[in-house]
Amino acid sequence: MTVIMNGNELSKKIKENLRLRATKLKEQNIEPSLVVVLVGEDPASQVYVRNKTRAAEQIGINAIDIRLPETTTEAEILDLIAKYNADETVHGILVQLPLPKHINEDRITQAISPLKDVDGFHPVNMGHLFMNEPLALPCTPHGIMEFFKEYNIDVTGKNAVVIGRSNIVGRPMAALLLNANATVTVTHSRTQNLKEIAREADILVVAIGRGEFVDADYVKEGAVVIDVGMNRNAAGKLVGDVDFASVNGKAGYLTPVPRGVGPMTIAMLMQQTIEFAERSLN
Amino acid sequence: MTVIMNGNELSKKIKENLRLRATKLKEQNIEPSLVVVLVGEDPASQVYVRNKTRAAEQIGINAIDIRLPETTTEAEILDLIAKYNADETVHGILVQLPLPKHINEDRITQAISPLKDVDGFHPVNMGHLFMNEPLALPCTPHGIMEFFKEYNIDVTGKNAVVIGRSNIVGRPMAALLLNANATVTVTHSRTQNLKEIAREADILVVAIGRGEFVDADYVKEGAVVIDVGMNRNAAGKLVGDVDFASVNGKAGYLTPVPRGVGPMTIAMLMQQTIEFAERSLN
Repeated sequence: MTVIMNGNELSKKIKENLRLRATKLKEQNIEPSLVVVLVGEDPASQVYVRNKTRAAEQIGINAIDIRLPETTTEAEILDLIAKYNADETVHGILVQLPLPKHINEDRITQAISPLKDVDGFHPVNMGHLFMNEPLALPCTPHGIMEFFKEYNIDVTGKNAVVIGRSNIVGRPMAALLLNANATVTVTHSRTQNLKEIAREADILVVAIGRGEFVDADYVKEGAVVIDVGMNRNAAGKLVGDVDFASVNGKAGYLTPVPRGVGPMTIAMLMQQTIEFAERSLN
Repeated sequence: MTVIMNGNELSKKIKENLRLRATKLKEQNIEPSLVVVLVGEDPASQVYVRNKTRAAEQIGINAIDIRLPETTTEAEILDLIAKYNADETVHGILVQLPLPKHINEDRITQAISPLKDVDGFHPVNMGHLFMNEPLALPCTPHGIMEFFKEYNIDVTGKNAVVIGRSNIVGRPMAALLLNANATVTVTHSRTQNLKEIAREADILVVAIGRGEFVDADYVKEGAVVIDVGMNRNAAGKLVGDVDFASVNGKAGYLTPVPRGVGPMTIAMLMQQTIEFAERSLN
């Protein structure tokens, strides 16, 4: 039997706990504050930003929602970031990606103070994570680690296989698993024997960006399977990178899409904001 | 038959090339300069520092050799680093580790400007490496990549297994191999089935710190085996982490100890210094 790991329920539980932590902060005259910057009119980005500001409000985080026109210059965004970097009442800064083409995303990401980098994308934060002395964690892999905690899955000494090597998911996921004492293999588009490698995994994290790519043939009986994908299939239905129907029954644990990894990502963004606000007490 | 990869010869070749690059720099009125700081009287550190300054001189790098007493304070070292960070005639700064116990090594490492961090140990540089946009590379793993280049070993799609997960060797080695399109597995003391995993490796990098630990049983016929170890055996003889006699004849390629990875590490330190000096031209 496969345990379906419910990201909606777990993220609700985490956000409930964060609400208490936000209340405690306010009792100490700290209002946790998150700046969310959206440049342009991309409809998907508008949805993401709305979900983030709404989650912040539910928890009691002051969401400073900044909408800028498509024509905003890089210098204007950098000025804005510098202003909020210096503002002690702001604990987290997030610039929604992608940015319009005339803006250098790396330059923007690197302008955010590592101490307010709630996404964990700054090279300094990536470096500290990679060196097993993390200061901020990328939200998606962090949310996946929370699943392991919630379901009492000890990754120590386990064979963990990560499919995909993006800077947002695959690489930081590998670092977190390694820091947690798993034996970690990172696979990708150039991997030659993916199926055989995946079949050796006790823990399989799939972030390959191809709808329903991983079926039961890739999965060892009883393995923990985490599906980071978000794709539309031919019928327009939202599907993950894992063929849920095929893997369900063979895996020991499995995250669904939707209601799996997705809601956890936003919960971890909120948790990072609260943590930064708590650090400001010291 | 096993090809023995000769680090002495390859490092000589690389240093010869660096000498030409140093000469060109001087023709453009840039004298490549490396500050080497040694605190205290540790005999092994004295040998390492001497080897580095000697290599620098051979190449035509100005080695600024700074010896400080064991009693030097952290603040004094930080002041010294700040001075050389600001000095445009200095291209590389290296503080020999380990430092005396009253000094915080992380604070020292992080004080060196990432743009002069010839060791590649600064979190910013680790982060950029991990995100596949490297600015400076840790010397030992970089030297290992040079072996692959010299011996025309294409790592793309190969199964690479790294034994050991230190910040100096294992982790950056894994990042470099992943950036070069290998499928990468990182193993360590908590790994449960090391022998089986190692036997699947096309490329096996051993940095475990245990003399002659890896014998032929850990090695696939024809694999490339890189030995990062430096240990004294019971008889006082310098040995690697690989049992050379056992693996010789089974591996396709093998680095010896000594005359393998060791000399390459210093050559890469010199190369990084020259590269920083060349960047100062732009």
